[in-house]
Amino acid sequence: MGLIVQKFGGTSVANAERIHRASLRAIAAKEKGNQVVVVVSAMGDTTDDLLDLAKQVCEFGPTKINPPKRELDQLLVTGEQVTIALMAMAMQALGHQAISFTGGQIGLLTDEAFTKARIQSINKQRIFEQLDEGKIVIVAGFQGVTPEGDVTTLGRGGSNATLVALGAVLKADVCENYTDVDGIYTADPRIVKQARKIDRISYDEMLELSGLGASVLQTRAVEFAKKYNVPLHVRNSQNDHEGTWIVSETPIMEHIVVSGAALKKDITRITFTEVPDRPGVAAKIFSEIGSANIVVDDIIQTINEEKTAYISFTIDKSDLPDARPVVDRLVKEFGGATNVVFQDDMAKVSVVGVGMRVHTGVAGRMFKALADLSINIENITTSEIKISCIVKREDGPRALQAVHDAFELHTTH
Amino acid sequence: MGLIVQKFGGTSVANAERIHRASLRAIAAKEKGNQVVVVVSAMGDTTDDLLDLAKQVCEFGPTKINPPKRELDQLLVTGEQVTIALMAMAMQALGHQAISFTGGQIGLLTDEAFTKARIQSINKQRIFEQLDEGKIVIVAGFQGVTPEGDVTTLGRGGSNATLVALGAVLKADVCENYTDVDGIYTADPRIVKQARKIDRISYDEMLELSGLGASVLQTRAVEFAKKYNVPLHVRNSQNDHEGTWIVSETPIMEHIVVSGAALKKDITRITFTEVPDRPGVAAKIFSEIGSANIVVDDIIQTINEEKTAYISFTIDKSDLPDARPVVDRLVKEFGGATNVVFQDDMAKVSVVGVGMRVHTGVAGRMFKALADLSINIENITTSEIKISCIVKREDGPRALQAVHDAFELHTTH
Repeated sequence: MGLIVQKFGGTSVANAERIHRASLRAIAAKEKGNQVVVVVSAMGDTTDDLLDLAKQVCEFGPTKINPPKRELDQLLVTGEQVTIALMAMAMQALGHQAISFTGGQIGLLTDEAFTKARIQSINKQRIFEQLDEGKIVIVAGFQGVTPEGDVTTLGRGGSNATLVALGAVLKADVCENYTDVDGIYTADPRIVKQARKIDRISYDEMLELSGLGASVLQTRAVEFAKKYNVPLHVRNSQNDHEGTWIVSETPIMEHIVVSGAALKKDITRITFTEVPDRPGVAAKIFSEIGSANIVVDDIIQTINEEKTAYISFTIDKSDLPDARPVVDRLVKEFGGATNVVFQDDMAKVSVVGVGMRVHTGVAGRMFKALADLSINIENITTSEIKISCIVKREDGPRALQAVHDAFELHTTH
Repeated sequence: MGLIVQKFGGTSVANAERIHRASLRAIAAKEKGNQVVVVVSAMGDTTDDLLDLAKQVCEFGPTKINPPKRELDQLLVTGEQVTIALMAMAMQALGHQAISFTGGQIGLLTDEAFTKARIQSINKQRIFEQLDEGKIVIVAGFQGVTPEGDVTTLGRGGSNATLVALGAVLKADVCENYTDVDGIYTADPRIVKQARKIDRISYDEMLELSGLGASVLQTRAVEFAKKYNVPLHVRNSQNDHEGTWIVSETPIMEHIVVSGAALKKDITRITFTEVPDRPGVAAKIFSEIGSANIVVDDIIQTINEEKTAYISFTIDKSDLPDARPVVDRLVKEFGGATNVVFQDDMAKVSVVGVGMRVHTGVAGRMFKALADLSINIENITTSEIKISCIVKREDGPRALQAVHDAFELHTTH
C-alpha cells in the first residue's frame, strides 16, 4: 500500500522484551502490505552509560579534559548498532526477513561537525534493494559517516533526524515516531497536570515548540519534515491510540490562538559589558560563536552614553564548555574595560500558535499572567507565531502553568 | 626506533582504570621513540553480555533460532569499538595524540564468512599517515568488513589475528600480546600446578599447541606470524616481566624433546556407520562439512567385511549446531543402513616439541604414562612434532598431568 518509516526511541527498545514488541509493530505494518523501514535509538540508558565511561577515562590526566568529539562519536554510535542487530534477530526469530544497517552502511553522509553533524545525503539504493526483496530494513538512528569514513552523530535526539531524512529520501507516506508518550502536549505534562494531547499541529508550530524545549522532536527533524512535506505521526509504542499528526498548515488551524506552551529550563545568558563600539564587533562575536557550532538566541545589544556596547545572548547550558574559551578569547582581544558575565540560572517560557497571525492581544495576556504571579520578565523575544519570555530558572514551572491557564490550553475551543 | 604493535585482551581493558594502565604502556613505548599501534578487544565480559542479549531476542518466535550470523557480527563488533574510543580518549587525557579506527576504517577487508571471517587485506596508508603525524593508532581487534560494507568478525580470539596481520602489513619489529598471564606455559596452570612459563618457542610448536587447546593464541594468528616472520611476544599487562617469545625455529630448540602439553576439553566425535563404500563418499562428507566452515580433525575410516565404511571424525563442540544439519542431510542422502552417532564427551591430550624429530621413544613414553593410570586411549594422531590422544572428557585433566610429569616439563633440561 505504501512506504512507512517507523522510529522507536530508547525507552521503546530498552530491553529484549520491548525490542520484541517494537518488532511486532513493524511486522504488523508489513503484513498490511506496506514496505517498512525502522529507525532505532540506543537501548534505554546506553548512551548515558557510555557518556559516563567517557567521562571516567577523561579524568586520568593532570587536568580533566572534555571527551574529544571524534572519539565520542566513535563511542556513542555503538549504542544504536546494538539495537539494530538485536531487532533484526528478533524479526528473523519471528519468521520475517529483516536486515540491519548502520548509518555508514546506507551511505548516510554528513559533514564533519562531530557530535552535531548534519546529514548531506543518503544512498537509498541499498535500502530499496532490500525492501524489494521483501525485507524489513532496520537503520541505526542518530549516526552517519563523513566522506573520509569517520563516524559522526547528529546530536541528542538525532534519531528523529534520521527518521525524517529517510522519510524524505524514500518518499515515505508517513513517518511514525514511537515514543513513551501519547503525542505532543499543550505543555510538558510532568509540569502542567492539565496538559492536553494535541491532535494536529502545523510544522511551523512544532518547529517553534521543538526549539523552545518540547523534547519529543528536535528542531532539525521538523525542519526536514516541513521542507520535504513528510507527514509525521508521533505516537505511543505501548498502545494503539492515534497520536499527534504534524502536517502542513491548513486555514482552519488559525482558529486556535495558541496551540501549545513550552519551557526551556537550561538557558545560560552570556553578557559582554563595555564592548568598544566599533563596526563589526557584534559580527565578530557571533561568527566566532557560530564557528564553534553553538546555537545562539535572544540577542540584545544596547549602546550606553560612554559609547560602549552591552551585548547579551542566551545559549543552551550544555554548550557552555564550548562557548567559554571562545568568549574568554574575545574578551582578551577587545581589551580595555570589556568584561563578561555568565548567568546559568535562566529559563524561557513560550507560547506558540499560528492563530497569533490573526488574533491580537496575545502578548498582553501572557505578560499579565506572569505579572499576576510577580514573575519578573528578563527579556522578551517574538516571532510571527510565538512569544518567549526569559525568566529566572526557579520561576520556570510556575510561569509555564500560568500561561497554560491564561490561554485555557487544557480545553479545545 | 622501531614499530611496535601491542594488543590488549579483554581482561587488560576490562574497566576505565585498566584502559588507563594499558594506555600508559603504549605511551611508554612511544616515548622510547617507537611508532605504536594498539589493538584492543572488547572490555571484560562485553562480548558474553552481547551474546546473552542475542540469545534472548532469538527466543521470541514459535521456535528458538540460532542468532543469524550477519546480525551477530553487526552486534559483536560494537564491543571493540567502545574500547578503541575510550582508549583514544584516555591517551588524549594523558596529553598524547591518539586516534581510533574500526576494522572498516582501516580497510581491513575480509571474506563473507560471518563469525569466522578471514582477513584479505589492510589499507596501511591511513595508519601510516597517522603514525607520521605522531599519533598512537588504536585499532579495533576481531573485526573487519566485506567489500560490500557488511561488518564481520574473525572468530573467538580474533583480536590476535588482527594483531599479527597488522604486524605483517606494517612490517612491525615486534607484536606484543598483553594478556592476564605471564606467557605460554608448558601446560594450563589451572590444571597442572607445576606448569612452567616457556621463554622461547618456535612458530610450529606454538601452532600445534594453539590448535590443541592452548587458548592464549589462536592458530590463525600464529600461522600468519610464521608466514610473515613477525616475532610475537606474549606477556602480562599487569607486570614488566619478559613473557614468551614466539619466533622462528633455531637448531638449539631441538635439544628439548617436548616443549609443552595441551588439553582440548570440548571435542565432539561424529561417527557414520555402514556408509556405502563407493568412491567419493568421504570426499562428499568432508567437502560439505568444510563448506559449512567447520574445522575437522582426527579422521578415521575403516572398511568392514560387508563392504560398508565406518567414518569417524572430531570437531569442536561449539561447531555442533552448524554440523548437525549437514550430517543429518548426508545420512538421508546415503540412505540404506547408514547411521550416525554423536559423542560430545571427548577430550584430547597432546604433547608438542620440535625435538621429536631427532629423539625416539616419545610416543611410547606418553602411552605408558596414560596406561599407568588406566586411561583408555580412544584414538591417536601424530604429526612430525606432536602426539595427540583422544580420551574421555572426564579423564582429560588427569591425562594432562600424567604426560606433564612423564616428560618432566616442570624443569628446564
